[in-house]
Amino acid sequence: MGDARQYHLLSSPFRMKRGGELHGARVAYETWGTLSPNRDNAILILTGLSPSAHAAANEQDPTPGWWNEMIGSGKAFDTDRFHVICVNSLGSDKGSTCAASIDPATGEPYRLTFPALSLEDVANAAHEAVRGMGIEQLACLVGCSMGGMSALAYMLLHPGAARTHISVDTAPQAQPFAIAIRSLQREAIRLDPHWNEGRYSDDQWPEHGMSIARKLGVITYRSAMEWNGRFARIRLDPEQRDDNEPFGFEFQVESYLEGHARRFNRQFDPNSYLYLSRASDWFDVAEYGQGDVMRGLASIHIERALVIGVSTDILFPLEQQETIAKGLEAAGAQVDFVALDSPQGHDAFLVDIENYSRAIGGFLATI
Amino acid sequence: MGDARQYHLLSSPFRMKRGGELHGARVAYETWGTLSPNRDNAILILTGLSPSAHAAANEQDPTPGWWNEMIGSGKAFDTDRFHVICVNSLGSDKGSTCAASIDPATGEPYRLTFPALSLEDVANAAHEAVRGMGIEQLACLVGCSMGGMSALAYMLLHPGAARTHISVDTAPQAQPFAIAIRSLQREAIRLDPHWNEGRYSDDQWPEHGMSIARKLGVITYRSAMEWNGRFARIRLDPEQRDDNEPFGFEFQVESYLEGHARRFNRQFDPNSYLYLSRASDWFDVAEYGQGDVMRGLASIHIERALVIGVSTDILFPLEQQETIAKGLEAAGAQVDFVALDSPQGHDAFLVDIENYSRAIGGFLATI
Repeated sequence: MGDARQYHLLSSPFRMKRGGELHGARVAYETWGTLSPNRDNAILILTGLSPSAHAAANEQDPTPGWWNEMIGSGKAFDTDRFHVICVNSLGSDKGSTCAASIDPATGEPYRLTFPALSLEDVANAAHEAVRGMGIEQLACLVGCSMGGMSALAYMLLHPGAARTHISVDTAPQAQPFAIAIRSLQREAIRLDPHWNEGRYSDDQWPEHGMSIARKLGVITYRSAMEWNGRFARIRLDPEQRDDNEPFGFEFQVESYLEGHARRFNRQFDPNSYLYLSRASDWFDVAEYGQGDVMRGLASIHIERALVIGVSTDILFPLEQQETIAKGLEAAGAQVDFVALDSPQGHDAFLVDIENYSRAIGGFLATI
Repeated sequence: MGDARQYHLLSSPFRMKRGGELHGARVAYETWGTLSPNRDNAILILTGLSPSAHAAANEQDPTPGWWNEMIGSGKAFDTDRFHVICVNSLGSDKGSTCAASIDPATGEPYRLTFPALSLEDVANAAHEAVRGMGIEQLACLVGCSMGGMSALAYMLLHPGAARTHISVDTAPQAQPFAIAIRSLQREAIRLDPHWNEGRYSDDQWPEHGMSIARKLGVITYRSAMEWNGRFARIRLDPEQRDDNEPFGFEFQVESYLEGHARRFNRQFDPNSYLYLSRASDWFDVAEYGQGDVMRGLASIHIERALVIGVSTDILFPLEQQETIAKGLEAAGAQVDFVALDSPQGHDAFLVDIENYSRAIGGFLATI
């Protein structure tokens, strides 16, 4: 199996919104479908905090991607018609320059000397990559979760760079509940003695902190309703339990979270996680509207938008999607607002493929 | 200021539901008002996980209690009419025998040799204390949060021991979301190297774990809606920030959580927290109904009940209060069900005194 990742070298220096600059930085991306001769059929997908650019299988890497059922021939993102691009966020460790990358000035990993990262930087890096492909205007800019905020930054900073927009389970700014959750995730990592102010090693890895952070993430990405049906109060089988472990796991839901934490741990660089998490708290459309979200959204000019949210999402509640929809509409876009009742919470876009396919495929068929 | 705590010595041995027994154990309690000559005006309050028996100021201890505005002359729990008792849960470190107590068999603290604690044990200990006061039947048994589950255990195990019941923000069993949150709180404590399998000391205290556990508690005890109004995205003043702390606090909501954690830390014994937290996960009315919650509730026989819940409670969702109300009604009680829209979430019973006073005072006026 090959590697489908391609890389775009960013301008050097690449100036960061909050000060500092990167030299020789890059972002990883993958593509599906074919760019049309006049380069007007490109769709850019900006991801949530942890996914890589491998959104779907492709020739070079046939392993399923994180949105595998959504991208392909005849699927919602129909690669017979569109050229789909997914960029790994700047600051993420899935191929893009991040806190774990080598600082060319020192030959050592940046760690906490990596400059403060904002979603505006993520957006600017993705925009440079798209321009580097010779694409002046995206047919559609798509953002999921954190990527939805990066997409708003993209449109705010680069007027005219997208003709249409799909906003998936995101927000124009983090609310205090989401800030509290992310702050606690960061704290769990920071308090792990192995984090060591960012100077962990393979032997001394902040596994405990990352495990708590991931579990808290999964708890808030899903929904109580889904878990009532899925786990109820079912106990683990005796052979799945460690009875020598005081206060060890006993319920299936605990083991489910542990499995998620194990699969995540060592798969994501803890410092990069901290940088991206903080960037999510910082982002605020209101900064572009003299402190007002609606005024901020009013400066985004696109033709059409599809805004999707889920009633069971506690991290990016539906009202926030409604705000985005109203704001883009007030700015002159023709907006479709889809409020789903998927039981899976924030993660519904990764699970409830049927409803997301119908909404997204239906929208893209009309642009 | 004196100490209002009184103590009831439990039967010795005191046999625990899941095996093991305590010798010379006791529970702490406080009282307000006067017991009538025929001992028929007693109200017992069972508490949530962390509060002490000091629910309100009294002569011996005039400091405000955790339900201070609810208990007193002319208040919802009117001490001109009722004799109010609040028992500190067995297993809690606020005066009752707990994991931090000295095991008379060894002269050393129990720590993890304390027997497995269930809410049935909490209920049995409280029941012994009430019987020790010469009270055959409570005029009303009240339980808040975890104490609501203890109260259900009390009525299941001691038929006829309560004439009426007030159920506040509780559940007939923990749902997987609540289990997941509590499991993660326990894990944060267990993963703290200073926890040391329960053998921490004043010098090596699992402060980090307790801090994370408490913050996660506060996040789930309150509601996103309340915080949107209260904190929004307000930043800390520069002098409140520690700019040398990487990824340090920046938003008011983070500092609010930190304040809660600081006030809690060292105020609650970590092992006792683990025992009570697990007991909350274990409790299940369905055990008393061949696996069925409604059948379990059907074996509770009381004259009247008031069941209160809050629509913004994510830990003990309103549907669970509805289940309790329906179950008690099906069992023959006359039930008042009050669904509040208080914005404060699970903690509303501690904050929205106006609505809880009206509901509880109104109910008690008619019994």
